[in-house]
Amino acid sequence: MTEFVPTIPDISDAALAARLQAALDNKTKPLGALGRLEALALRIGSILGTDKPVLEAPQMLVCAADHGLAARGVSAYPSEVTWQMVENFLAGGAAVSVLARQHGLALTVVDCGVRRDFQARPGLVSRRIAPGTADASVAPAMSAEQCAQAIANGREVVRALPGNALLLGEMGIGNSSSAALLLSRLGGLDIEACIGIGTGLDAAGLARKREVLRQVLALHAGATAPLEALAALGGFELATLAGAVLQAASERRVIVVDGYIASAAVLVAQALQPHVVQRCVAAHRSAEPGHALLLERLGLDPLLQLDLRLGEGSGGALAWPLLESACRILREMASFESAGVSRKEA
Amino acid sequence: MTEFVPTIPDISDAALAARLQAALDNKTKPLGALGRLEALALRIGSILGTDKPVLEAPQMLVCAADHGLAARGVSAYPSEVTWQMVENFLAGGAAVSVLARQHGLALTVVDCGVRRDFQARPGLVSRRIAPGTADASVAPAMSAEQCAQAIANGREVVRALPGNALLLGEMGIGNSSSAALLLSRLGGLDIEACIGIGTGLDAAGLARKREVLRQVLALHAGATAPLEALAALGGFELATLAGAVLQAASERRVIVVDGYIASAAVLVAQALQPHVVQRCVAAHRSAEPGHALLLERLGLDPLLQLDLRLGEGSGGALAWPLLESACRILREMASFESAGVSRKEA
Repeated sequence: MTEFVPTIPDISDAALAARLQAALDNKTKPLGALGRLEALALRIGSILGTDKPVLEAPQMLVCAADHGLAARGVSAYPSEVTWQMVENFLAGGAAVSVLARQHGLALTVVDCGVRRDFQARPGLVSRRIAPGTADASVAPAMSAEQCAQAIANGREVVRALPGNALLLGEMGIGNSSSAALLLSRLGGLDIEACIGIGTGLDAAGLARKREVLRQVLALHAGATAPLEALAALGGFELATLAGAVLQAASERRVIVVDGYIASAAVLVAQALQPHVVQRCVAAHRSAEPGHALLLERLGLDPLLQLDLRLGEGSGGALAWPLLESACRILREMASFESAGVSRKEA
Repeated sequence: MTEFVPTIPDISDAALAARLQAALDNKTKPLGALGRLEALALRIGSILGTDKPVLEAPQMLVCAADHGLAARGVSAYPSEVTWQMVENFLAGGAAVSVLARQHGLALTVVDCGVRRDFQARPGLVSRRIAPGTADASVAPAMSAEQCAQAIANGREVVRALPGNALLLGEMGIGNSSSAALLLSRLGGLDIEACIGIGTGLDAAGLARKREVLRQVLALHAGATAPLEALAALGGFELATLAGAVLQAASERRVIVVDGYIASAAVLVAQALQPHVVQRCVAAHRSAEPGHALLLERLGLDPLLQLDLRLGEGSGGALAWPLLESACRILREMASFESAGVSRKEA
């Protein structure tokens, strides 16, 4: 394994899991009556290594970059929307800005390689690899060195952030194509099952996207190992996010996975270090059809299904209060004994 | 129509709906990219009559009562759990107490007819009809007068509460049987489709519940009009909730519908005044199989599907931040023009 990828250990702990399950079963409610919120509490407790989990200083990390492949017309929006949306994130007007504010999530935007020079300002971190990737239909999106650097960047950015929870977000016109390519290659699926309309392609656009992505996969047929696939098919924001996931996992932060693109970054990280997924919570299932397949590969069950197709971290932010609720159930709910409530009749 | 049932007018307003849709479409995101959150924003805006909705002083109303039918063994828990859980709600240790605290929801517990004398204290409102309903397998659960009084109570309690949003909650051992009976009768469904394990019946208990509920329906075969069905098959908490729904609807409050039992109260209110549903948001779909059928009858699409089977208002509380998010999207997100973001390519 290359040195910039940390080893992520198995954190399963049967004794802790049993303690968490017993605590949940002893709360004043019928057995299992809080459904998936109980599984969520168990997972968060397992990640944080405690039966009284407290989520601290949650960090929304939005990684942004441009894609050379966008020139091939695989997106409904022009590439300049990437930098315009970065400005919007920082100005507080984007969906993720609004939702992060609602829930007290600290928002950090990382310029991983946007085709624009931004003015330095609070909330913006510059970790540019290059002004956009190369067009993957003619060459690998990035070199092995660029890919390693982006992963290292993601690790370093997370290392500097406080708290014990990381929410993944992204922006990059064309990046649902990268997600589809990575799912197809690493998941062994036909590209047809992995593509969708992204931000809103029409039928002709979708046909073009399908055709272009088939060409890209054929061109990089040899890029089957995770890092090679990431370099050939990915984006700078995806590689940076993969690094962020690896770092957060190594620190046992709770990782809140957003939509299709953020999930693709987790897929890469999982391919490198399978135990990263133990630290992940899937926030939602996107309307993008490949996302359900991707979550299945990760073995993650999404909390929300609201037909979102936005990315940015918006789904993670919307699901965040459920994570808080799960922790409060463990910490604050009374037990049958403490509340003097009768148990189920035998 | 009896005088204690207010007339609920149609509030559809095509001009306002068009204004809300235009505002959503002009936010910096692909068209429809926030999925069901956009439909939710449209609904809340329509209820509150504005394209900049603000949810104010949300009220969680938990109505509690005992059921004579519980003596027939239709629940996994003994009847005294009703009063024990009322104490737990007030002490702050129940799931709904924890979740209401998390989201700043004012919690009011209404004793609609629990078999217990409670000490007066803040947060508890006494509107007792009787110490539990009659056993519906031998007589109507309540008289027409009791039913009318409970509805009037629900209206009066809501009238005295501040704010523009009401979250429905309930507690009453045996009340999933009442919900099933009401759905079967008012929805024209076989009881088999309407019943489930409630708080956790085993197979023998479920068979007993099925048998008892068939007897109850046969005994009250003539109770087909909404108020007669409610009196014969319902509970004091259900009738009080139906009144609360009618009052909240008449004031154009946003009504957040919880699980199977709260939904059954809305079904009764809808049968009396169809337009109440325009003011409702379905928080979640319970694991109780009848709930999906009930929501379908109401024409409501639940926000969450987390396999909850608890009631209390827990599902409504969990969904609450999504309603807040929907309003903030309308109020705080930038437009394409204000943020200088390019639109979709033609």
